[in-house]
Amino acid sequence: MDSNFENLAHRISDEYRDLNGSAIEILEKPPSAIEFSRLVHVSRPVVIKGLSFPASDRWSNEYLCERMGNRPISVAATPNGFADAITRGPDGGLYFVEPAVETMTMKEFLETLDPHGSPSPSTAIHYLQSQNGNLFPPLGNGSENKSEFEPLARDVPNDIPWCTEALGQNPDAVNLWIGDERSITSIHSDPYENVYTVIRGIKHFFLVPPTDSWSLKEKYYPHAKYKRNPSSGTFVIVPSSDTPDVRWSSIENPELRDALPEEISPIKVTLHAGETLYLPVGWWHYVRQSGLTIALNWWYDAEMRGMSWVFLNFLRNSYKIELGNKETADAP
Amino acid sequence: MDSNFENLAHRISDEYRDLNGSAIEILEKPPSAIEFSRLVHVSRPVVIKGLSFPASDRWSNEYLCERMGNRPISVAATPNGFADAITRGPDGGLYFVEPAVETMTMKEFLETLDPHGSPSPSTAIHYLQSQNGNLFPPLGNGSENKSEFEPLARDVPNDIPWCTEALGQNPDAVNLWIGDERSITSIHSDPYENVYTVIRGIKHFFLVPPTDSWSLKEKYYPHAKYKRNPSSGTFVIVPSSDTPDVRWSSIENPELRDALPEEISPIKVTLHAGETLYLPVGWWHYVRQSGLTIALNWWYDAEMRGMSWVFLNFLRNSYKIELGNKETADAP
Repeated sequence: MDSNFENLAHRISDEYRDLNGSAIEILEKPPSAIEFSRLVHVSRPVVIKGLSFPASDRWSNEYLCERMGNRPISVAATPNGFADAITRGPDGGLYFVEPAVETMTMKEFLETLDPHGSPSPSTAIHYLQSQNGNLFPPLGNGSENKSEFEPLARDVPNDIPWCTEALGQNPDAVNLWIGDERSITSIHSDPYENVYTVIRGIKHFFLVPPTDSWSLKEKYYPHAKYKRNPSSGTFVIVPSSDTPDVRWSSIENPELRDALPEEISPIKVTLHAGETLYLPVGWWHYVRQSGLTIALNWWYDAEMRGMSWVFLNFLRNSYKIELGNKETADAP
Repeated sequence: MDSNFENLAHRISDEYRDLNGSAIEILEKPPSAIEFSRLVHVSRPVVIKGLSFPASDRWSNEYLCERMGNRPISVAATPNGFADAITRGPDGGLYFVEPAVETMTMKEFLETLDPHGSPSPSTAIHYLQSQNGNLFPPLGNGSENKSEFEPLARDVPNDIPWCTEALGQNPDAVNLWIGDERSITSIHSDPYENVYTVIRGIKHFFLVPPTDSWSLKEKYYPHAKYKRNPSSGTFVIVPSSDTPDVRWSSIENPELRDALPEEISPIKVTLHAGETLYLPVGWWHYVRQSGLTIALNWWYDAEMRGMSWVFLNFLRNSYKIELGNKETADAP
């Protein structure tokens, strides 16, 4: 990294930390639209209590299986619980590896979670994380893109009214997430304002502000996908031939001691059922869960006007990006 | 300037311009609190029509004189209309020069505006610009700080309700500005969200976004004040002995061709009586007026939490600041 950029990035990082600390505000009840609008302007994560949905009371395993019946659902499958993560490939190089996607019923899926036997090389770890607006897809995508989880949509509001009013727009996508402690979401940031709520179980968020983007060491990694041998059930990593390289953090597990520089003060949030996290655009997050965990989130497009978006881009680019797979190569 | 910083500042500047253009939005009626809150988040200037105050109908010269009577008021006096501006001192060096402050009645002050005779070296140009919350001073300053313009305060609301609600705070200061085309406000930025309205006359704003801060070439200038010879009426610049150097733009008149780099696209706004400007925190402004002009403004403290404040500081500091008065000296 160029030493001037490095100094500059560190100075911004330090000033942000000095002014903002690393505590997280907890609201005992949902904000009004104007209160939330002020929170969006500050762009700090906030835990919100007292928000509940029909899903909160209804979504037992029995209810989910009954409502979904034999409808096929798409579930991510990996050998290790790391979907969309940097993983060593068959040639010894590092790849950004997408999960295999397997189709099953809700009942079959839920039976794979919280297993009692010990894992074997042919055991798949499943995570429902389709992230494409699986409950309410973006408007205007045509009826052929109908949600796989339509029978559950009646238990979930298609927006969060105080957020919709504060941002002056409807959500871009509403997603359903179901998994257990074997599934990990690697650290990344999204171009969305995110309202994330836990329906069952516990989510553990490890959050890093955009001003510390330099510490995440993003690199460009070649793209690959897990494929599963239909007979043996074992996974192989298959490099993609026609997918562009993926820019991703090279910090595999930020919770490990020394994974991040000492001066970084991450915010650690444990979100229980009935609690909601406002995760502002550009904040880095690494996410785990305890036991069978069901969560919902509403993604709202980030504000592209004004200086915030320009600043977020600058912060991501203040680290000189290199190819992650090769020793000496220029960034594309 | 360090060439890396220069490149970086230019890149940010260009990206902001690409994404935001240099047009200004015009609202045909005042925004709701939530609409204004979204505008504050975007942090772009906006012209707002349809806002009126009792002052708008009442403030003829006669009314102002009658209400104010013989109360003494404080008025800035300069030989050239440049109060708080970089000016060459008696030793040939450049100084940040504050105006003399003279005390007179409202009637005497208004008679000095829009003069018909030709100026002489002993002519003072007066501008009512005390900027200290001259209508409604900050709360908690004690009753001894009572406004000089208290008889006019009943014609001016002590806040702008949609702004107060959007920002979740009362204004820090409400100011009255009276002057004519001979008075110029040199280009600067304030740590305030600013709602600025014209009651009579015309204001001309020349606005530059914070992302172009590097082009304003701030330097540190020694402080001085105008003093006026009581008998001859002529002005002298008296360097201050105990006031710290002042950080100020070295661009004397940004409207002159070649004063700013070609790629800067300032926003030029002509604000007529009955029109209001939202001027976001950190935006650079150079202000002139046509004829006798009366304006009011409400200053709200800027949000210091979050990334915006850190980014504004970074943008101001991306230009390496030098002493403006000396050829070779390090910034203090």
